[in-house]
Formats: sequence, structure tokens, C-alpha cells
Amino acid sequence: MSTVSPDMAAKIIDGKAIARSLTEQVGRDVAAFVERGNTLPGLAVVLVGNDPASEVYVKNKALQTHRAGMRSFMHMLPQSTSQAELLDLIADLNANSQIHGILVQLPLPAQIDPVVVTNAIVAHKDVDGLGEINAGRMALGIDGIVPCTPLGCLKLLQSVHTDMQGKHAVIIGASNLVGKPMAQLMLREGCTVSVGHIHTRDTRALAREGDILVVATGKHGLVRGDWIKPGATVIDVGITRVPTEHGKTRLVGDVAFEEALPVAGHITPVPGGVGPMTIACLLHNTLQAALLAQNVVSRPDQKV
Amino acid sequence: MSTVSPDMAAKIIDGKAIARSLTEQVGRDVAAFVERGNTLPGLAVVLVGNDPASEVYVKNKALQTHRAGMRSFMHMLPQSTSQAELLDLIADLNANSQIHGILVQLPLPAQIDPVVVTNAIVAHKDVDGLGEINAGRMALGIDGIVPCTPLGCLKLLQSVHTDMQGKHAVIIGASNLVGKPMAQLMLREGCTVSVGHIHTRDTRALAREGDILVVATGKHGLVRGDWIKPGATVIDVGITRVPTEHGKTRLVGDVAFEEALPVAGHITPVPGGVGPMTIACLLHNTLQAALLAQNVVSRPDQKV
Repeated sequence: MSTVSPDMAAKIIDGKAIARSLTEQVGRDVAAFVERGNTLPGLAVVLVGNDPASEVYVKNKALQTHRAGMRSFMHMLPQSTSQAELLDLIADLNANSQIHGILVQLPLPAQIDPVVVTNAIVAHKDVDGLGEINAGRMALGIDGIVPCTPLGCLKLLQSVHTDMQGKHAVIIGASNLVGKPMAQLMLREGCTVSVGHIHTRDTRALAREGDILVVATGKHGLVRGDWIKPGATVIDVGITRVPTEHGKTRLVGDVAFEEALPVAGHITPVPGGVGPMTIACLLHNTLQAALLAQNVVSRPDQKV
Repeated sequence: MSTVSPDMAAKIIDGKAIARSLTEQVGRDVAAFVERGNTLPGLAVVLVGNDPASEVYVKNKALQTHRAGMRSFMHMLPQSTSQAELLDLIADLNANSQIHGILVQLPLPAQIDPVVVTNAIVAHKDVDGLGEINAGRMALGIDGIVPCTPLGCLKLLQSVHTDMQGKHAVIIGASNLVGKPMAQLMLREGCTVSVGHIHTRDTRALAREGDILVVATGKHGLVRGDWIKPGATVIDVGITRVPTEHGKTRLVGDVAFEEALPVAGHITPVPGGVGPMTIACLLHNTLQAALLAQNVVSRPDQKV
């Protein structure tokens, strides 16, 4: 209907460029850290089973860790691995002083409880920030390791807003991985925070209140143009592969991008928005974990 | 101006009666627990210094624990107690198998860091639910110990609503003690959740969206009649002592009660609303901790 003039269109938040810049910064900080006589930061990535998507993610994480000048350890276990075997490996990695971060790729095979495994990683090496101690630190406003995807979203928001205090942040999706930690981060920034989800009665009306709108539902195209407050900053965490007319496939987000473009003030594209930030934040968290390891004795979780 | 007819007035939620009934239930459950051959549940309450209000709270907690048929241990330390001395006491209490719950009364003297002390209590004895592990469990939706005041608010809400799914819960106040854990509990109930606080731009408009409105700001009379959605359930956590015209004092809440009465569907009074629930929930949590102690080995925090 309406054509988009350059004045009307939202500014696109270039996640790829911001992630590259963060990755380069981590690389420089790693070099400086090592120059000060510290051990090279090391990340152990654990994959159980043969899920092809997980294999790609894990290889990519390992490769980028290596490129940022850190040590990268890969542990690929068979689909039949028992929970006890995986917990033994984690105990070894917890005790290994060359390893500062441990990441167990999810999902895990059915015989393994992901909650038990995640919480077996000692808090100061939990670079995914998904264990109960880091979740608790975030809930209480204590310094800890922040999960990679919400941290990436925050950094994208910070590229637009120097101060978010008093803004209304609306988060659609209440998962442990994104929505819930994102709500905590936005409260920490001084935002009024609303969280909507599958049981929300009028998600459109809620979304329209957001000066900041973060969408993480996995339902592609859920958020239409008229769900967005004019001028809002929109962060689209969703990523789904859909078929195109020409028999190929393409990646799309939870936000109907073309409709959102003339309404939003700033918006992340899919792909090239939140996605690239997640690995960059993993590298950032691994370096943070190596820094934490210098103060090991003062952290309560070190008793474990 | 308007007189309140019985039809128009909100139903008052009788926190005193609900707390009494919960306390009696805990008493019966304790008796049954002991009859099954288990150790008597025990609560240790630690007070540092001579704050008169804290002394009253602590004595009341100890007395009610005793009345519910549990063991009550009081530790009253001088104002000059060092952090190391307090941590030594907590280590002893952590190791003592007769003690299932440990509560350190806040505030603490300036030389002691409340975050360090709270996190020194082993998670399965943290009956105040304020440590990072229990905060994390709540954030992740894992079973854990829920802080007493938010748990009391939830039980009051449950006395009105059998199902809160899809309702919009608005929480005014974002403290670690009440607002933030309350938001987690409401998400767990399937509510759409909004959190407002000191930086919120239009708190009145936000409050008016709440089918459920929980107010915990410590600003007496903040929430006026026209801040309330007609028919909403209002939980007033605030409690402030104010002077009356006759040279005496009385306790008031964060909600202008007389104004709220004709608008709200249900409302808690102050006093006699949330207050009595807090101690009842402490007794409930102590019994829960004693139950948890039976499954000690399976909890990750038991390694500490």
C-alpha cells in the first residue's frame, strides 16, 4: 500500500557489524590479558549426539573462539552417552585450570536432564549463563554471567540508546533462554518492563506500548506493522527457515519486517541482527570468565 | 463524596484469617511429619545488633515457630559482630542437622555485607529464599524456596482466583524482596506481567491495566482510587506508621484504602493483609526445608 520513503523507514540495526566490532574488541582484550602474564582463556564446547544444526553451531563457536585468540576444546560424545558420563566430563572440565568456560550444546538426548547438566557446570565457568546461580545473580542484580542471546540484544539496544531509564520495554516470549533474562536486564536498565506470552490476551495492544519491543517467540511473522508503537526500537530474536515461492528457503524473524520498517524507529533484520551477536557474546563471556578466575577465592560458588 | 454501599465495596481479603489457617495447617503437617519418624523441624533466627523493630520481628518469628510445634533457635549477636564471626556461625548452622531453616534478620550493621551473608546460607536451609540459588531456581521455574512475602501475596491471590492464567498482573515496586520475585511468581501462574517502579513515567496508567495489582513501594497512599481498574484484585504490601489527628499513630499501606474500596473487586487491608502471611509462610518454608532435607543427596547445592 504505502511506499517507504527513506525518511519514513526505520534505521536498520546492523547486528553483523556490531558483532564484528565486539569480536575484534574481545580479540584485543584477550591479547592484552595474555600479555599481562595470564593463562590463555579457554572454552570447552560439549556436543552430545549428531544433530546437524547443533554440529554447525558447535563448530562455528569453536572456530570463532580460536580466531579471537583463545584456546578452544571440543568434546563430541555419542548419542548414547549417559547422564553420569556427561557429568563426569563436566567435573573434569570444572577442575581443569586451562578451561575458563564450559558450554554444553542444547538440546541434549532424552536420557539426559538438561537442568541437572547445566547446574553441574561451576557458576564461574557457566559462560552460557543458564545455571541457577547465574540466573539468581541476575535476578538479584549481583554481577554474574549473563546469557549470550539477551546480552546480545542488550548490546544492540545500547547501540541505539545511551540511556533506557523510564522507557517501556515490552518483551514477547517468556522463555528461560531469552524472555525472562531479558526482562531482568531491562529492569536493571531502569525500564518499565512488561512480559507477554502465549497466554497473553491482547498481545498486539501490549506490544504497541513498547518504546522497546523484544520479540522471542519462534512464531515467524507474528508481530505485524500495527503491533509496533511508531518510532519504537524493535529487536527480533526469532529465526525460522521458511520455503520461498521459487522452491528455495529463507530465514525470517518473528516480526513482519516489511510492515515494521515504516513504523519502527530502529529494527534488527533477520538474518544479520541478533544471530551474529550470540557468538560474539559467548566470546565476551569466556573472556569475562577468565577474568573472574583471577578472583576465584572471593566467589561463593568456588566452594563447590 | 460517594458513600460506599455494600454492593459497591470491594471484598476485603482477610490476611489474618488466611494466615491463621495456613499456620494451623503447618502445625498439623509438622505433627504428621514427626509421627512418620522424622526429626523435629528446626528454625534458627539470627539477629545482629539492637534494632527495636528487628527485635520484635525476631521474637515473634521464634514464638510462632515454637507454637507450630517446631524447634526454634535464637542467636542474638552484638552490634559490633564482624562479618567473619557471623559467617562462622552460619557455617555451624549449615552443618547442624537439627536446624532445617536459617534466617538472618535484615538490616545488618554496616560492617557486614548482606549479600555475602545471605549467600553463605546453604540453599536448602535458606527459608527466606533470598539467596542467589533460590532466586535462580525461581527465575528458571525450578522448585526452590520462595521468599516469604511474595509467597504470602500469592496465597492471598489464590484465595480469590483459582486460575490466574492470562490475567494482567501489574507490580509496582521492583525490589529483590518483593517486586522482582513477585513478577516471577506471576509469570509462573501464566499472567501477563508488568513491573513499574520509581523510573516509570506513567505509573497510574500502568496500574490501571492490572486485573491484579500488587503494590510494594513503601510510599503510603501512593495508589489512589483512580489508579485501580474497576474490579481488580489489589494486594497492598506497604506498611508505614503515620501520625493521626489525635496525636497517636496508625499503620497504613501504599494504597489509599478508602478510595480503593469502591473500585477494587478484592483488596487486602493494612494491617491484617499481607503482614500476617509473611510469618505463616516462614513456618511453611521451614517445614518445606525439613522435607527437602530428606532428599539431601539429589540437590546440587548439597555439595557445598
